[in-house]
Amino acid sequence: MATRWGVIGTSNISHDFAVAMSTLPRTEHLIIAVASKDKARSQEFAEQFEIPKAYDSYSLVATDTEVDVVYVGTLNEHHYSVSRLMLEHGKNVLCEEPFCQNTEQVQQLVELARSKNLFIMEAMWMFFTPAFTILREEINKGTIGEPLQIISSFGTPMSESLIQQRNSGGSILELAVFSVYMSQFLFGPEKPQIYGACGQLTESGFDKDASVILKYSNGRISTFLSHFKVDLPNEAIVFGTKGNIKLYDPFWSATKMSVNGTDINIDVPPTKKATRYGNSVQLIYEIQEVRNCLLKGLNESSIVPWSLSIENAILVEDIRKKLGVTICK
Amino acid sequence: MATRWGVIGTSNISHDFAVAMSTLPRTEHLIIAVASKDKARSQEFAEQFEIPKAYDSYSLVATDTEVDVVYVGTLNEHHYSVSRLMLEHGKNVLCEEPFCQNTEQVQQLVELARSKNLFIMEAMWMFFTPAFTILREEINKGTIGEPLQIISSFGTPMSESLIQQRNSGGSILELAVFSVYMSQFLFGPEKPQIYGACGQLTESGFDKDASVILKYSNGRISTFLSHFKVDLPNEAIVFGTKGNIKLYDPFWSATKMSVNGTDINIDVPPTKKATRYGNSVQLIYEIQEVRNCLLKGLNESSIVPWSLSIENAILVEDIRKKLGVTICK
Repeated sequence: MATRWGVIGTSNISHDFAVAMSTLPRTEHLIIAVASKDKARSQEFAEQFEIPKAYDSYSLVATDTEVDVVYVGTLNEHHYSVSRLMLEHGKNVLCEEPFCQNTEQVQQLVELARSKNLFIMEAMWMFFTPAFTILREEINKGTIGEPLQIISSFGTPMSESLIQQRNSGGSILELAVFSVYMSQFLFGPEKPQIYGACGQLTESGFDKDASVILKYSNGRISTFLSHFKVDLPNEAIVFGTKGNIKLYDPFWSATKMSVNGTDINIDVPPTKKATRYGNSVQLIYEIQEVRNCLLKGLNESSIVPWSLSIENAILVEDIRKKLGVTICK
Repeated sequence: MATRWGVIGTSNISHDFAVAMSTLPRTEHLIIAVASKDKARSQEFAEQFEIPKAYDSYSLVATDTEVDVVYVGTLNEHHYSVSRLMLEHGKNVLCEEPFCQNTEQVQQLVELARSKNLFIMEAMWMFFTPAFTILREEINKGTIGEPLQIISSFGTPMSESLIQQRNSGGSILELAVFSVYMSQFLFGPEKPQIYGACGQLTESGFDKDASVILKYSNGRISTFLSHFKVDLPNEAIVFGTKGNIKLYDPFWSATKMSVNGTDINIDVPPTKKATRYGNSVQLIYEIQEVRNCLLKGLNESSIVPWSLSIENAILVEDIRKKLGVTICK
């Protein structure tokens, strides 16, 4: 029987989520409802992806008894409240990254899911991509020796007015989340020392850019940059004592990587419609993970377990505090 | 009339210096003497490059009345004492980078050169390369808008025993010197805030690796890594509000660069013998600068003026102190 999805929000990432899902068998995955506060937008989204129900209220998805699991694709600042609403109504949840706007919110969602025996996972799709799977295997095989350094970046230029308008937490929370996860994957769960510089803050106290060094034990260091004003390489490179592995731009959904200088191209399924973000048909891998977990009766994924999301939230919050950024409540 | 050079030390860089010079007209540049404490080595070097005088003592170069200018290509820890010896005997000096092992030594050499009306320059050859000239021009033309970020690295693996043996000051002084100069070029002479992490120190207190962020005013940041244990990209990329310029590996002597994604290949003169370091035939540009300065009666180059070397030494020393590295005396 197909997993029946509800989609909250008609953002670009929700669009790509629906495009990606349309490449999977309808016997396994179906979007049966979409909700936007703007009725016209949910109707348009529903028509575009042949979704039977278009709601103008998130509550209607929460109370729709046919929905098994909800994908939260709203703006970041609503992730917590929407996910909470869904859990309270007994829905399983896949919530876009970054999960919440502070650690407490992540912990509350996890506790709520635990108490209600529901599934919830932060949509850290990078971890499910083939490139990341290869990275994991090569690291474990010792192909690059002892990993000692990571360099990564995510910078995407935006107009000054758009930067000022944003209320989503700043570049560390919004962009560097992938770099922090990459650091945790290789060097965690140890809590690193944080060194860093924050370029400039918006009037509301969010970082327009950040440069961060995380120092772990035994000479292991992760250096990363996030930026709303300049385009950065958007690559991640892991350097070891015997070589390096590079995930090309965009590193969080790479379809090209190199292992000790040898390029590897990764095939991904073709889509009928273009995705709005690069390579985001790769959302299918996390979509499949959600179904697998639900079929097994698991409330958390072993790839992005609750503990990892909480550790990530703590580290991201610590970095933001260190750099003087406002933590949203 | 040719500029008559004396070479001190028969290191790899001295070798490359002689290879590079052999591509220049003999009517302009001649090495007339070489000195090594090991007589056999100076004789071999002299034979290889058809140099008439092979000395087994640096003093013999200092007192050779035919020598106009001395190239100091010894190990770093001898740069100061050898340069001092040469200046005291009235010789002009081109001293390999990094200039000295602390700020005070640089200031003393500069004062000595000033009091004796002699030329001295730190061999920061990067500044004289065609790639750097193009970088300078494109930045000035505004091709990449306002430069806001620099990312650069220099990492070269070495055996643990060799790292422990080294007494040259560590990776910041030896490798990151190019990154610090790059930062000064774009964002100096302002003194930045220093953030950073030092991987591990040798028993004698030198850094095996370092990760550093320099924060300047108006959101300008330079991030760089130096490493004796892993190979790093060894590129430098300057990111602006309208694009980026990349100097490919090795960035301090690049023969390939890209300006807003368009690659530029740089032709350099062919050499009869192979150089030991990549692209180091480009030493010719600083060699020509020295002759030009001497012909004009200048004691310092406008490209690497004394003030710049002193600023660099201060910044490098401040970074090393911040990271707990031993400052050599």
